[in-house]
Order: sequence, then structure tokens, then C-alpha cells
Amino acid sequence: MEGEWWMAQKQYHVAVVGATGAVGQQMVRTLEDRNFPVGKLTLLSSERSAGKKMRFRSEEIEVQAASPERFDGVDIALFSAGGAVSKALAPEAVRRGAIVIDNTSAFRMEENVPLVVPEVNESDLTWHNGIIANPNCSTIQMVVALEPIRKAFGLERVIVSTYQAVSGAGAQAIEELNEQTKAVLEGKPVEANILPVKSDRKHYPIAFNAIPQIDKFQDNGFTFEEMKMINETKKIMHMPELKVAATCVRIPVASGHSESVYIEIEQDGVTASDLQAVLREAPGVVLQDDPSEQLYPMPAHCVGKYDVFVGRIRRDLDNRRGFHLWIVADNLLKGAASNSVQIAESLLKLGLI
Amino acid sequence: MEGEWWMAQKQYHVAVVGATGAVGQQMVRTLEDRNFPVGKLTLLSSERSAGKKMRFRSEEIEVQAASPERFDGVDIALFSAGGAVSKALAPEAVRRGAIVIDNTSAFRMEENVPLVVPEVNESDLTWHNGIIANPNCSTIQMVVALEPIRKAFGLERVIVSTYQAVSGAGAQAIEELNEQTKAVLEGKPVEANILPVKSDRKHYPIAFNAIPQIDKFQDNGFTFEEMKMINETKKIMHMPELKVAATCVRIPVASGHSESVYIEIEQDGVTASDLQAVLREAPGVVLQDDPSEQLYPMPAHCVGKYDVFVGRIRRDLDNRRGFHLWIVADNLLKGAASNSVQIAESLLKLGLI
Repeated sequence: MEGEWWMAQKQYHVAVVGATGAVGQQMVRTLEDRNFPVGKLTLLSSERSAGKKMRFRSEEIEVQAASPERFDGVDIALFSAGGAVSKALAPEAVRRGAIVIDNTSAFRMEENVPLVVPEVNESDLTWHNGIIANPNCSTIQMVVALEPIRKAFGLERVIVSTYQAVSGAGAQAIEELNEQTKAVLEGKPVEANILPVKSDRKHYPIAFNAIPQIDKFQDNGFTFEEMKMINETKKIMHMPELKVAATCVRIPVASGHSESVYIEIEQDGVTASDLQAVLREAPGVVLQDDPSEQLYPMPAHCVGKYDVFVGRIRRDLDNRRGFHLWIVADNLLKGAASNSVQIAESLLKLGLI
Repeated sequence: MEGEWWMAQKQYHVAVVGATGAVGQQMVRTLEDRNFPVGKLTLLSSERSAGKKMRFRSEEIEVQAASPERFDGVDIALFSAGGAVSKALAPEAVRRGAIVIDNTSAFRMEENVPLVVPEVNESDLTWHNGIIANPNCSTIQMVVALEPIRKAFGLERVIVSTYQAVSGAGAQAIEELNEQTKAVLEGKPVEANILPVKSDRKHYPIAFNAIPQIDKFQDNGFTFEEMKMINETKKIMHMPELKVAATCVRIPVASGHSESVYIEIEQDGVTASDLQAVLREAPGVVLQDDPSEQLYPMPAHCVGKYDVFVGRIRRDLDNRRGFHLWIVADNLLKGAASNSVQIAESLLKLGLI
């Protein structure tokens, strides 16, 4: 579909690390769906998941336990198996000549690692040193919507409250949501072992609940998820001075993150229609904004799509340079898998691999 | 429990209009639970629900079809049967000598109708003319938390994003959430007939979804629910100049509204601990704020409680007078039924009835 320009090009040896996870599975599907020129696909996982088989195009591929040697001959390695695995194995993959596109937070804020959303800062790919970081899911969809606004009108401030799906916490969290939901409906006791943070001490049910904690807490009272949104947004948009605040909340949705975003732009005299006009033409954005038709984005409608959906655009009633937006995207696709594959596509397009 | 001061006082004839609805049922329970001095209880409803029986204390009371004559002899009438019913019958009740406490939006913004949250503006009850309005659910819990902050440090600005439970749309919406959820889990087709707004043209599933529409849209792009939060907050807090913005979102929770609230206060040099100290002592507020213990409010924990729960208090990283809070309450109780009964208690305490 979007791949004609590389037809008849070289085929690449791609590895997916964490292939059996919620994001890994979507990476494999996205490589196929977007016709990425995969000559060979290596699927890697933990020892526990090794031996499983996954379908790619018409092939069945056996998943192998990840180890440094598995990266011999790999051109592009997509990592999504947690920060510890990336820290241990990404340098090994780079040493063996692979370019790593890492979906964990392991390297995102390192100065010599570009943090890339192709619609926003594709040109940062030119200075990579083997590792390219894929931003946090909730950050990606927000900057895709904010960058065209920044370009047109300037941007001074962002305050976001998120409505995040459980799939951001992995396949186990989806299972937990389903099992808890069944238990509630059947009047049975509810068990919580995964959310809000598997490795944290306390766990709370997410079924028919909202949990205002994603990732662990920092000393400043913000969670790591909130600080990721704050710091990554500044880095991706090249705006260290941008004011960003975030409150990240998990809700009982399987997939699809939503965000209520308040922004203040630089320019005066801009209307909601001006913002709509800009977003209607923006790459990777689908404008869904017509109150008279009850048209606005919702997670249930965005699942399986690569785009970022924006609606509910309206000017603040007190601040002429303030606007409210509602931004929704599939957190496993644009928030993770498809952004990673898009980075690989950009590398090809720019002749960087 | 909280009622000793009126022991041995007069007993009152109380009517509940909309008794069989989600809020009406909680009104009956709350009157009993808080030992309100009910001498006689009249339960009123639509023709359709008339004849049903409801338990109050040890009695079974038959629900009657509402009509003007039913208010003969009634001292206090709690209305929660929709704006049309309030507009038609509240003046009739007042004409017959009742004080009306109205939970609909019918009279809230009328100049000669006090809009009351007892913890915030109890003294507005002194100038009522027969009708007292109970604010919108999402407004009530927010002002209970903001008023003590305003008193201590001043308040300039509020930006709120809500996470609202379906019970705010009535008993049918709870049923719809449950049925849709079952259908999704069983892989069956999902039907939507109630949410986001029963009388609006389009309906969307709420199960495993988030809907950024509560009540219909106004021409300015905000929904009526959002405008209620904006206008009612100003009226209750006596702050016509307060900057308030709201984005109201329905999530798949049965009961318990949550709110992500950003505020800017007047005073400089205030810390999150200062806000915690004020809220710890505030009437009707329970502070649940200890990140080191993963302690924060959640809707699943607030159901059945009369209080407003506040946590996640932290200072904004860019604005020294900016703070973020997470506010949760049972929308059927403090957001509706128990605030109405508290208004009645205040009338008694102040000798206004």
C-alpha cells in the first residue's frame, strides 16, 4: 500500500525481540501488512516462550530464545521485551551490525539516541549511532497531533490527562481485565496481580475501575509514565522549554489510548476551525470532529488503525490562545509496533540503511 | 450517626420524586442511613413505575404516580426525575408548602434559586424561595475539594477532565454497560441504545470504550455537561470571574466519578504538603494521598461512601502556583442523593424549615 517506492529494493533481515508479547505480535503483523521488504524474519523471545510458532506471510516461524549470536546478519532489530532485555542485548545487536529500533524506555533520554516519531522528527534519524528509540505510546499519539499545530501557530504549554488501555501493560493485563470483568459480572471475587504495575507492591482491580497510576512513582509525586510524557515530548519536538504536565490513568479498555489535552499556542486570533484545517492536512492524523454529527474519536473505533484520531477541538472560554483536544490512537500500533516499523521505513526512504 | 442534634425534634413528611430511579433509590437509602427525621415518606414516580414497592426502614411503601395533589402536606420534596418533571411539578409542590430540593438542571442557574453544596455554601440556603437546586454530580465533588483550597490560598483557574461512571445516566445505562460487557466477552454483537445521551441521535457502546460526550453539544463545541461544570462551579463558589474549563468523558465504570483537575492558586510559595494539610481537615473530604504506599482514590473504593476522596496532589513542574489533583466520589451519593439529603439536614440545622 504505502511501500511502492522501495519495490525491487534490497530485502532485509529483520529481528523482532519480544515477538510473542502484545507489541511484538503487532510488529510481526505490521511488517506484513505494510509490505516491509523482509527477506528473513528472526523471532526472539525469553526462554519461556521459545519454541512457539508464529505466522508471517505464508510461513510458520519458530520463536527462538534471544541471545547475542542471534543478531549475526540481522539488519534491523525491533526490540519490545522490556528495558532490561534492551539494555543487555541492543548493544550486542549493534556490535553485530544491526540497527536497533527500541520500543522500551531504556535509551530514550540518552543524548546520542534519537527518539523518533516519523511525522514529527524523521530527520533525527540521520544522527543515530545504531540505536533509535521508539517513544512511549501515550507520547507518540500526542506529538503527532501537536506538531502540526506547533508548526502553524507555535506551542507554549500542554496539560494532558490520559485514559489508557490495559494492553499498554502487556498481554497479561488484557487477560486480567477480561477475567476480572467476568468475575464481577458473575458476582465472584476479583483477583488483581498485574495492574497497575506488575513489579510494584500493591495491585488493584481494573475492571469497572480507574487507576491513577501507570508505572511507579518518582519522588516528585509524578509517575514515571507521566515523566516520560513530559520529557519525551520536549525531546521529540526539540522544545526543552515547552511547559508539559501529565496525569496518566488506566481505564478498563483493552486497546486504544485516549487523551484530554489542553494546549496554549503562541499566536493570537486563531480559531478552532484554523486548528481543524491544519489537522485535516496533517500526516498521520485523521480529523474526526463534528459535534453536530456526534463525531469524535473513541478507542473502540481506532483499534487496528495506524492513524492518530483527533476531535473535540474547541477554544478555551477564558484564554483566547487556549484550546482543548481529544486524541485517540491504537497504543499497540501507532503507540508502539507501527511507529517502530515506520521508523524502519524512514531509514530506508532516507537511505540510512 | 450525624443526626443527634435533631433528636426529639419534629418529624417531617418527605417526598421523593423519581423514587425508582438510580438516584431516587439512593435518596431513600440515604434518608434511612443518615437517620433523617422522616415522619412520613411519599414515593413518587412516572405512571409506568407506579405500584412498585420499596423498603424504607421496616416498611414497604407503594410508589405512586406523581401529580400536584401528592404534595399536599409534604414538607420536603426531593426531585430526581428529570428536568421536565421538575419544571412541571416543583412549582406545584412549592405552592402546597413544600421546600423542593431539585437534583435536575431545571432551576440551577436561575438567579433566585440557590445552588448548594453544604460544605461550600450552606449559607445560600437562607435566601431560598421554595426551590433549592442540587448541583451536577461532577461539579459537587470538585467544589468540595476546591473550596478549602480557595479559602486557604485563593483560586484563579481550574481545568478538569472527568472519568464519569455510567450510573450518572441512570439505571438503564448501568444495565446497558453490563449487557454490552457480557456480549463483548462472549464475542456476540453489541447493542447501544442509551449512551452517550438517550435522546440524542447516535448511540455508541460504552463497554471497553471511552466516550467524550456527556449530555448534548452546545454551539460553542462544549457539551451541556461541561458547561454545567463551568457555570455551576462559579455560582456555588461565588466566583463569577473564576476561569474554569471542562472535558467530560464517560468510561466503563458503573458508579464513582473520577476527575483529573489542574488548578492555579493565588498565593505563591505553597507546597503540595500545604494543600494536603488543608484537605486533611476539610469537611466532607478524605485525603488518600501517599504514593509510597500506592494510596490514591479510585472509583471502585468510593462506592457507597458519602465523602469526596482526594489524592495525587502534586505541584506543577512549570508553574509554582499550579497543582494537580485526582478527585473521586460516589456520583449517586455525594454527587446526588446524599448531597440532597445533606441540604435537607442543613435546612433543619439552620432552622429554615
